[in-house]
Amino acid sequence: MKFLDKLDKAVKQNNSLVCVGLDVDLQKVPQTVLNQEDPIFVFNREIVNATKDLVCAYKPNIAFYERYGVYGLASLIKTIELIQQTGIPVILDAKRGDIGTSSAAYAEAAFNIYKADAVTVSPYMGKDSLEPFLEYRDKGVIVLCLTSNPGSKDFQRDIFINVAFQVKDWNKHGNLGLVVGATKPEDLAEIRKIVGEMPILIPGVGAQGADLAAAVKAGVDKHGNRAVINSSRGIIYASKGEDFAQAAAGAARKLRDEINKYREK
Amino acid sequence: MKFLDKLDKAVKQNNSLVCVGLDVDLQKVPQTVLNQEDPIFVFNREIVNATKDLVCAYKPNIAFYERYGVYGLASLIKTIELIQQTGIPVILDAKRGDIGTSSAAYAEAAFNIYKADAVTVSPYMGKDSLEPFLEYRDKGVIVLCLTSNPGSKDFQRDIFINVAFQVKDWNKHGNLGLVVGATKPEDLAEIRKIVGEMPILIPGVGAQGADLAAAVKAGVDKHGNRAVINSSRGIIYASKGEDFAQAAAGAARKLRDEINKYREK
Repeated sequence: MKFLDKLDKAVKQNNSLVCVGLDVDLQKVPQTVLNQEDPIFVFNREIVNATKDLVCAYKPNIAFYERYGVYGLASLIKTIELIQQTGIPVILDAKRGDIGTSSAAYAEAAFNIYKADAVTVSPYMGKDSLEPFLEYRDKGVIVLCLTSNPGSKDFQRDIFINVAFQVKDWNKHGNLGLVVGATKPEDLAEIRKIVGEMPILIPGVGAQGADLAAAVKAGVDKHGNRAVINSSRGIIYASKGEDFAQAAAGAARKLRDEINKYREK
Repeated sequence: MKFLDKLDKAVKQNNSLVCVGLDVDLQKVPQTVLNQEDPIFVFNREIVNATKDLVCAYKPNIAFYERYGVYGLASLIKTIELIQQTGIPVILDAKRGDIGTSSAAYAEAAFNIYKADAVTVSPYMGKDSLEPFLEYRDKGVIVLCLTSNPGSKDFQRDIFINVAFQVKDWNKHGNLGLVVGATKPEDLAEIRKIVGEMPILIPGVGAQGADLAAAVKAGVDKHGNRAVINSSRGIIYASKGEDFAQAAAGAARKLRDEINKYREK
């Protein structure tokens, strides 16, 4: 199924715009998980099983798996395989950006090795750097536009509006999206106006303390959809004890319900 | 040893500014290599053994390894281990760019898992996205500034001068560098003026057909050094037959000697 169809279906089915960031950190998981053969996979499996009826997407950031070497990446592959059985789409947060055959190799890795439904990419190297990804028409390609961190002012400030216009223009197959941080709701609203119903992945509502109401109102399309609101640590480390999975479910439900208040007209 | 010291030593010892891009593609390696247990590693080993007296750096692009899954990444780790025995520095071409704990995880992967001497990163997310890399003071952090592809005009055009100034400003520990494509020698000369003796990694002299003389003259510092001129396919696939390693040595020597003509005052 196409990424966007899969996303829309999960949003509707679970009545949720919540995306769970699977940013695994073995220093934060309980001892009973660490005692398992593949603790990264076991942790993710418990989180996924507890939250799969509450969310519209999962977003593993590949950095956290790469840090554990080939074993970490093998756990990532197993995790995505598992999520694929739930029907919830997987956004591989990789922020890739390269050209020509290198870009094609990254796209092949994202979609054929890791088997993600969508991947995040950086726009810095321009249109031809994204083209190998766009050829996978059933896959989502979500381009960094305006991020939630302090350094977003260093270079993005001068070009993010141009990025939004260009990405809209490149969206011939309807498989592009944008990453826009929740911390700047006015900019988010302006970008939403530019890109219409394009999906926008919105990080920064948890640890980075954005105003959730403002972010939701600015981020959704005219139907109250197509905003994928990510929380990582706020959900997966809601408890660091044995009850981490139930706590994650509780945090995901709470975030979902709060977001839904602001989605309503 | 610090990346920059290691680079300077290799430049002097081999009288070379040539960097070999280890962009492995199993469709282009001879059958005798494919018959080995770890063909990616065997191919790289033969290339490294044939060229280690002719070059100043090796630059594996991680995309080409990731495409082969965890086996490809295991071959990359073995390859870098081997190169570390030669004294030639390894630049991991990864173009990473993320924030906070994700950025720290990428830095840990680049320097502690892959054990590279330097890594390429994207500036798009700003200063705080690079800080976790800069904390590894002995390691090089080489920031995309102006790339050699057509799409570099899309967004870089408006900000690459600012990137050069900012990176110069952030270079408190002397471990930063820039990526500037060979295809724009006038811009390269302007960037060189801004950053003084900072190392500049220069791709685009081979397949992308830049004017080598112009690129070398614009790219070197006032001592004729600190330009790391990359060729990938032009060296490693100089022959696709059994003589690939000797052909690679021939191509590396030829490129080295031609570059050295233009390095001279």
